[in-house]
Amino acid sequence: MYRPELPDGENASLTSAISPDGRPETGTTYRVPPRCGVAVRMVAGQSIRVINTHGTQVCDFWAVCDGGPHEFLSMAHCHTETGGIMPATGDVLVSNRRRAMLTITADDSPGVHDTVIASCDWPRYQVLGCTEYHDNCADNFRMALIAIGEAAVHVPDPFNLWMNIPVSPQGRISWEVPVSSAGNSIVMRAETDIIAVMSACPQDITPVNGDALAPTELHFRIEA
Amino acid sequence: MYRPELPDGENASLTSAISPDGRPETGTTYRVPPRCGVAVRMVAGQSIRVINTHGTQVCDFWAVCDGGPHEFLSMAHCHTETGGIMPATGDVLVSNRRRAMLTITADDSPGVHDTVIASCDWPRYQVLGCTEYHDNCADNFRMALIAIGEAAVHVPDPFNLWMNIPVSPQGRISWEVPVSSAGNSIVMRAETDIIAVMSACPQDITPVNGDALAPTELHFRIEA
Repeated sequence: MYRPELPDGENASLTSAISPDGRPETGTTYRVPPRCGVAVRMVAGQSIRVINTHGTQVCDFWAVCDGGPHEFLSMAHCHTETGGIMPATGDVLVSNRRRAMLTITADDSPGVHDTVIASCDWPRYQVLGCTEYHDNCADNFRMALIAIGEAAVHVPDPFNLWMNIPVSPQGRISWEVPVSSAGNSIVMRAETDIIAVMSACPQDITPVNGDALAPTELHFRIEA
Repeated sequence: MYRPELPDGENASLTSAISPDGRPETGTTYRVPPRCGVAVRMVAGQSIRVINTHGTQVCDFWAVCDGGPHEFLSMAHCHTETGGIMPATGDVLVSNRRRAMLTITADDSPGVHDTVIASCDWPRYQVLGCTEYHDNCADNFRMALIAIGEAAVHVPDPFNLWMNIPVSPQGRISWEVPVSSAGNSIVMRAETDIIAVMSACPQDITPVNGDALAPTELHFRIEA
């Protein structure tokens, strides 16, 4: 039986926590190592700046209510509440209980992000032909939580920052290279106490992280 | 703290089970009462025909693995595996572990269904201005499971049969009247043992169930 808290394999996400409980130092720039995930605990009112350091790296982003893990940032509920599938500056992102979780307060990228695609996971890489374990965003989420003493009760559908997945008028999707540039960042203010998790997507088979098929690091900072 | 198994209110879904454990009689046509949810246990190889009896009634549809409730039909994973947001005949619908759950084997409607919108829930109706409890699909899912002796561990994002939610090239969505007709049906074959749950969506504030704003019943049948 599938247990959502258990990763299918391991990587350095287990030892990449920013602190034992995930609490950050305000103003410090932290690194999300390539192919890994990192969690950060935020209190309501704090903002997080996620930085696309090298320009075309997708960040799978999640937020879980601190203290109530069955409530989390939900893309399907955001679609209703924002009236679209492409969140933009000013949009309030909501939980699966339609509570405000985060507000996008700034985004200096072209604003192309994805909200319809699940995180890559070990089953996905098996579909793509891998026979040995491949780093993946779902496991990075699980391990980033373990690294700060928490456990996933579910792997929510992510807010895929900078992921470029056009939806055609016929409802077809394609996997394209990001249109973001080095140093682009997005800022989101927490509207309740959350655990934010970021994964520097390790996808190196499709070009979602750029034509070089070379996943890179990301950075983030808690501001105010 | 939010507990996914507990409905926010109650309706006749609690007493609308087709049998004590949800096992069906093959060939019998069952009713999903207006504004209610019903669960049915299916073994691999059986097919379910969901019938839009009166023509413009949306059916929120879910499938959970029988015996492993953390694995369920996942729209975000289906988007990747089917390459689109509008499943059609021949498509294999997968779980959050990318296992085949159901194959669409027939659909005599125009094929307009939704996979990007969360189920309506009590918080949604509060956003829409309701001050007293309103029937909702999320609670119908929870209650349909309770009625056959099961419990929700999560309310998955539904496959919204006949729900007409166009996505514009700019990523905006709108809530439109279904384009289906009375008697249209969709047939899906179970590829593993599942509990299927259907809710006759009680939405009567937006026109997703037709301009009359009058939610109706649905019917379904297990075939072979």
